[in-house]
Amino acid sequence: MFVIITYDVGEKRVNKVCKKLREYLTWTQNSVFEGEISKSLLMRCLYELELIMDKEEDSIYIYQVANPKNIKKQVFGQEKNFDELFI
Amino acid sequence: MFVIITYDVGEKRVNKVCKKLREYLTWTQNSVFEGEISKSLLMRCLYELELIMDKEEDSIYIYQVANPKNIKKQVFGQEKNFDELFI
Repeated sequence: MFVIITYDVGEKRVNKVCKKLREYLTWTQNSVFEGEISKSLLMRCLYELELIMDKEEDSIYIYQVANPKNIKKQVFGQEKNFDELFI
Repeated sequence: MFVIITYDVGEKRVNKVCKKLREYLTWTQNSVFEGEISKSLLMRCLYELELIMDKEEDSIYIYQVANPKNIKKQVFGQEKNFDELFI
């Protein structure tokens, strides 16, 4: 499935959340990750995020599209890929 | 259609982009807007965003899902709606 994960988390946890998501998805904008992922891997990723986040303060959204053909991405301006910057 | 728009724009343009998007969609996370919108309204919104943004620096992603039933949103932690905070 195709997944977009966006997050808005406390400063202390930003790096941890970001690092965790980089293990599973592609980092395409400041607080946006996306990519294709299996259901089981996504479940593991979300379980690990739950251990890091503070549910009273933080906000993580997971948008799932079962068939990647059903979602179309359009880019205005720069298309970023932070992962490439860190290789 | 259902649309998610995420942005990463220069500080000088953040407020303008945000204000413009609030005319069309729901503000659900720091730099994330979402909602159902017609193709023609989306085109108008994007045209107006193009006038505000700096294509050399800024990055705006538009994820479109024709049938809203094909996308599932899961929320971890807080579900925010900044629009409600400003009423």
